[in-house]
Amino acid sequence: MSLFLIIDILGTIAFSISGVLTALKKRMDPFGILIIAFVTAVGGGTLRDVLIDADITWMRNLTFVYVIFITFIVAVIFRKKLGYVRKSLFLFDTIGIALYTIVGVEKGIAAGFPPIICVALGTMTACFGGVIRDILCNEIPIIFRKEIYATACILGGTAYFLLMKTTLTEDWVVVISGSLVILVRLLAVIFKLSLPNIYKDQIVIDKE
Amino acid sequence: MSLFLIIDILGTIAFSISGVLTALKKRMDPFGILIIAFVTAVGGGTLRDVLIDADITWMRNLTFVYVIFITFIVAVIFRKKLGYVRKSLFLFDTIGIALYTIVGVEKGIAAGFPPIICVALGTMTACFGGVIRDILCNEIPIIFRKEIYATACILGGTAYFLLMKTTLTEDWVVVISGSLVILVRLLAVIFKLSLPNIYKDQIVIDKE
Amino acid sequence: MSLFLIIDILGTIAFSISGVLTALKKRMDPFGILIIAFVTAVGGGTLRDVLIDADITWMRNLTFVYVIFITFIVAVIFRKKLGYVRKSLFLFDTIGIALYTIVGVEKGIAAGFPPIICVALGTMTACFGGVIRDILCNEIPIIFRKEIYATACILGGTAYFLLMKTTLTEDWVVVISGSLVILVRLLAVIFKLSLPNIYKDQIVIDKE
Repeated sequence: MSLFLIIDILGTIAFSISGVLTALKKRMDPFGILIIAFVTAVGGGTLRDVLIDADITWMRNLTFVYVIFITFIVAVIFRKKLGYVRKSLFLFDTIGIALYTIVGVEKGIAAGFPPIICVALGTMTACFGGVIRDILCNEIPIIFRKEIYATACILGGTAYFLLMKTTLTEDWVVVISGSLVILVRLLAVIFKLSLPNIYKDQIVIDKE
Repeated sequence: MSLFLIIDILGTIAFSISGVLTALKKRMDPFGILIIAFVTAVGGGTLRDVLIDADITWMRNLTFVYVIFITFIVAVIFRKKLGYVRKSLFLFDTIGIALYTIVGVEKGIAAGFPPIICVALGTMTACFGGVIRDILCNEIPIIFRKEIYATACILGGTAYFLLMKTTLTEDWVVVISGSLVILVRLLAVIFKLSLPNIYKDQIVIDKE
Repeated sequence: MSLFLIIDILGTIAFSISGVLTALKKRMDPFGILIIAFVTAVGGGTLRDVLIDADITWMRNLTFVYVIFITFIVAVIFRKKLGYVRKSLFLFDTIGIALYTIVGVEKGIAAGFPPIICVALGTMTACFGGVIRDILCNEIPIIFRKEIYATACILGGTAYFLLMKTTLTEDWVVVISGSLVILVRLLAVIFKLSLPNIYKDQIVIDKE
């Protein structure tokens, strides 16, 4: 089993558990929890594949279906203990978005899209599973309010493109741009960085 | 007109009326009610066709567009009397999800997807029109909380696959697995069965 | 630059600003505002292209990506002044939906769909960016409650079809049906017209 696949599976597990946790907070039943775990893990990639008119990976290759299903079962059984693995989850999740970003960018390049669209596809792959999760849970998507993920993905995806124009091998480009995603996200969480707050002065834009 | 088509139309009517009722509760205007009736009836099949990259039936064959439109007109005019037909609606709706499940499973098989994905496509066809309806009405989808439909569809779809490996003719497989969907749903409603409640002990999963 | 393209760009600007305004009311961060501006402007056309299985324009032709991005930057910087351009915005927006309706109808015709579906595709192109915007902002879509847009689009799209059966040239058909969309919407706003209110008698449909 390649390192790439192991990282992908760890990311999928982290994303699925994030879905289970959100669904539990909304007191969903087991079917609802399973669906939320599923869309959190594969929703971003599915949206990407629909937009670029590609085959949807998880519908042909069942590896991720099984990984999500087993994660769902284990996470529901041990739901009271999930707090203990929070730090590991955060790590897997961060590595997962780095990988998902690169997968999305590469799929966009392979289909011949312009660089800016490829970066958008990478960001979508990493972030929009969470957006669909939040919509199905009747919440404004968290990354639209307290942005943690998306900037890291945009920077990493952009780095991927710039580095591909150098003499670096593709392996190095993947490692460096993926590490950039991880680094930006870790620094953002450690130093509580966020995008500039444009509401400081509490202007009421529209009273209607 | 084949029995199959009659069942399909009765199911579409039941789904459309369920959409009209939900939209009326949200006090939508006639345009909103029409759209909600529409997505409730065809949303699940449309999502399925987008995911498997198939032509979307109602865009080429207008039968269901007319059925939904006439149902919308009649249901809005007689909106105060809809309570009286509730039992008939429940019956049509139950027969409808049985049929939709089988249509979805068969479309998946025809496109060469693995069994577990075909069962998921059947469940999606039967249940996700209601999910889109609830999202457009700004509610957490009801089947994620009080699951009534989905388990019946999953069991019926699985039965379809297992029975196709026996010597039964396809007609019998359709009748038996469709009846199973109907039976499970009727029993669930009559005996107020639901998926196990995992919140009995009122654990607060996450206090953040 | 053709008149057609100029109108399209003005419409895109108006739609993007409507997205920025909605996102600001929800106190989203800059990333959220950008995404909402984006889906408001291109969401309807994207949904249409996914349903008719066509290439998605903005993913290959970056003009609109740049227009939306610049509009987003300018609108966020001058967010306190947006009230002053409200009337211009309303005008651009109204011209925009007229154009989007015709583009949608023409794409449907080119792909060989029946007239009623082409009118639906035109209405979807003009109106469903706003629907997706409202869903991402956790609101019931405004056009389902206080319908302002959709009737104008349906009438204009229908006029397009009827006029194409006359001896008028296509240019005249576009001008007349587009003007009809604009006229209906202006009259609706000036005279505060809306679809018939079916809740006047305050019937409680369903007490469950």
